[in-house]
Amino acid sequence: MSYPFLNEVRVIESSAFIAAPLAGLTLSQFGADVIRIDMIGGGIDYARMPLAPSGRSLYWTGLNKEKRSIAIDIRQPRGRELVQQLVTAPGNDGGILLTNVGVPWLSHATLAAQRDDLISCTIQGNFDGSTAVDYTVNCATGYPFVQGKREHPASHAHPTPVNSTFPAWDACCAYQAALAVTCAVMARRATGAGSELKIALSDVAFSMLSHLGIMTEAEVLGREREPIGNFIYGAFGRDFVTRDGKRLMIAGISAGQWKALVEACELAGPIAELSARLDKDLNKESHRYEAREAIAVLIERWFAARSYNEIEQRFNASRVCWGPYRGVCELLRDDNRVGANNPLYQRVSTEGVGEHWAAGTPVRAEGVARSEVRPAALLGQHTDEVLSSVLGLDSAAVGKLHDAGIVAGPKSDPTVLHR
Amino acid sequence: MSYPFLNEVRVIESSAFIAAPLAGLTLSQFGADVIRIDMIGGGIDYARMPLAPSGRSLYWTGLNKEKRSIAIDIRQPRGRELVQQLVTAPGNDGGILLTNVGVPWLSHATLAAQRDDLISCTIQGNFDGSTAVDYTVNCATGYPFVQGKREHPASHAHPTPVNSTFPAWDACCAYQAALAVTCAVMARRATGAGSELKIALSDVAFSMLSHLGIMTEAEVLGREREPIGNFIYGAFGRDFVTRDGKRLMIAGISAGQWKALVEACELAGPIAELSARLDKDLNKESHRYEAREAIAVLIERWFAARSYNEIEQRFNASRVCWGPYRGVCELLRDDNRVGANNPLYQRVSTEGVGEHWAAGTPVRAEGVARSEVRPAALLGQHTDEVLSSVLGLDSAAVGKLHDAGIVAGPKSDPTVLHR
Repeated sequence: MSYPFLNEVRVIESSAFIAAPLAGLTLSQFGADVIRIDMIGGGIDYARMPLAPSGRSLYWTGLNKEKRSIAIDIRQPRGRELVQQLVTAPGNDGGILLTNVGVPWLSHATLAAQRDDLISCTIQGNFDGSTAVDYTVNCATGYPFVQGKREHPASHAHPTPVNSTFPAWDACCAYQAALAVTCAVMARRATGAGSELKIALSDVAFSMLSHLGIMTEAEVLGREREPIGNFIYGAFGRDFVTRDGKRLMIAGISAGQWKALVEACELAGPIAELSARLDKDLNKESHRYEAREAIAVLIERWFAARSYNEIEQRFNASRVCWGPYRGVCELLRDDNRVGANNPLYQRVSTEGVGEHWAAGTPVRAEGVARSEVRPAALLGQHTDEVLSSVLGLDSAAVGKLHDAGIVAGPKSDPTVLHR
Repeated sequence: MSYPFLNEVRVIESSAFIAAPLAGLTLSQFGADVIRIDMIGGGIDYARMPLAPSGRSLYWTGLNKEKRSIAIDIRQPRGRELVQQLVTAPGNDGGILLTNVGVPWLSHATLAAQRDDLISCTIQGNFDGSTAVDYTVNCATGYPFVQGKREHPASHAHPTPVNSTFPAWDACCAYQAALAVTCAVMARRATGAGSELKIALSDVAFSMLSHLGIMTEAEVLGREREPIGNFIYGAFGRDFVTRDGKRLMIAGISAGQWKALVEACELAGPIAELSARLDKDLNKESHRYEAREAIAVLIERWFAARSYNEIEQRFNASRVCWGPYRGVCELLRDDNRVGANNPLYQRVSTEGVGEHWAAGTPVRAEGVARSEVRPAALLGQHTDEVLSSVLGLDSAAVGKLHDAGIVAGPKSDPTVLHR
């Protein structure tokens, strides 16, 4: 489900794992022709969990939908040369490489010698080129110490960290890369000049600490954030359990959200008493944060006396900002923001996986037609098509490459091979 | 620290909280002239924690650096008209509104009546226009049930959820918005047509579940992810504590990382025994995941006998993928990826905050000069300048607007007012 915004743009993606493939997916969702290069039989991320019974990776097929796939043996010199030719092939909006693989034969300098308006975007671990992944970066952001319940309230030592499961820095890095490539294309259209772009995962993570004020808090106030469990920092919000054992998240961040919450929970009186007792102005978000434990006790009590249905009805009738906790199976079954009710999701059929919901871009553009979500290709599904359309090779030349084991078609995909 | 990529682009930002302001910051870091509109005295997010002793928000000043600020009383009709005029003012790359405030007088239709090539980008909670914030969306992604330690291993009920502290969906939404606006500018340059763009926070979050294979896992395999504590899903990785009580995160995702880890920890023998005993091929990441508890026991033992310094030296000499756990104060003090050693960070002086490190964009563009990071403005710091340069008002007209209380300059900022 992509848009025609980047219609003329062709991106060659040589990548693995999350950040670079998600950047490629994002560009393709805005209309770019993204061609992913893989080793014959699959690269190092081709068998990542979770796996379908066929052995096909749901992770790989999720991140590599909407792309064309070409399978090349890059251990052979002619294979490497083919990749270089694909990147530097003529075409106004071609000449773009997206990669997280730092190999000399795909370096900007090497490729720019063949096409001087080259745009390359390289995703790195750290800015000095050293290795890092989302999880070995996130541990240094301070966030794992703030998540979860406090275990050492009295001590100055760090509490036990709680890692994040969603690789947020990979995702942020992917979107920054997609934006950087788009800006570089725009600049090249205006000036003719290419760009050599680099983005380090740890720069994405640590710069966010600056943007959210956390780095300045540490520097100027000399203060480390305290563990806050499931509370929202700086305002009021937390999870609560209903009488029938269901769990909701509530946010009282803005004054309007707070007012709606207090009214819906019929707590105007107790909140006024609390305010007087603690000498806090609970219309101020910072005072709500300071009084969060006491506020939570009042709301807990109100929740314990009511069923989920009753609370849902009451909250929906007001302007309360809330949401239910859900597992992913429940989300698919019970939440009308996902699936048939939301045009963002389409039924697709992925080879080796079967039929399933797949999401396009969350960006909606009024009056602009979206195309259908294309499921992930088999490895090498577009090998012949790409060699012919991008490099202009005739069928004899393509056949020779197959015979020499330099390229392979979809029958080389393990899903098909082991059928 | 911005780039000239979006140099001609002028964006009017009417926003609050994180997603829309971060989108504006991102566009400004690529060179756009982003003008943030605020209420005189500040909008609903102007006093968000953390606060400097002056009362100035480190959160607000973090997200609103690199922008110009104009303070307008939008409760007055002339104030609203000024905002509309700023959005629709002439200029090839003007006519862009970035907002998360859904008010009729700033609707696309209203503004497009004044400038038909308008680009508007509206960030919403849910795609039906209903309210949601990061925390009330994240609770429905399933992630809070997977984070942290399992508390109900035998039960089919959900474990106690652990919320994320970093608002990842806000960040992802911000970058998608910045990309969407950039694509729309590129399309308008080519065709002359504007775009009406909308992005819902919950669409950003739930579509990610599709991209990462988690939605398909739930649908096709009918499987909910299990809580994994601090392990990395699908491969090997976890936190470990050294003899002197320091904590590291280790990742053995790729075969190369795993090999380096086993060698550096001198565990080739024990790992081979384990492999035979469990009948697992630990060179496969999925087998490593299945054997994670047993592998962790071996590494824990190795860590318990060694100091942080010893382990750091050994890991750095090899290709082990690892990172230390750090609080933000330690990050600033001890980590040379942040601060003076990395050109991403600059010293800036923010009014009401003082001098501190501030980050530009994590994107590095070889050979393209970055400009300096501009600290967050005082509210209304650019009121006169913007009215004059964008709307062409002369000083008499600007003076009248001040006299009528429709606009205000920097002296109206609470930081200055209460000095």
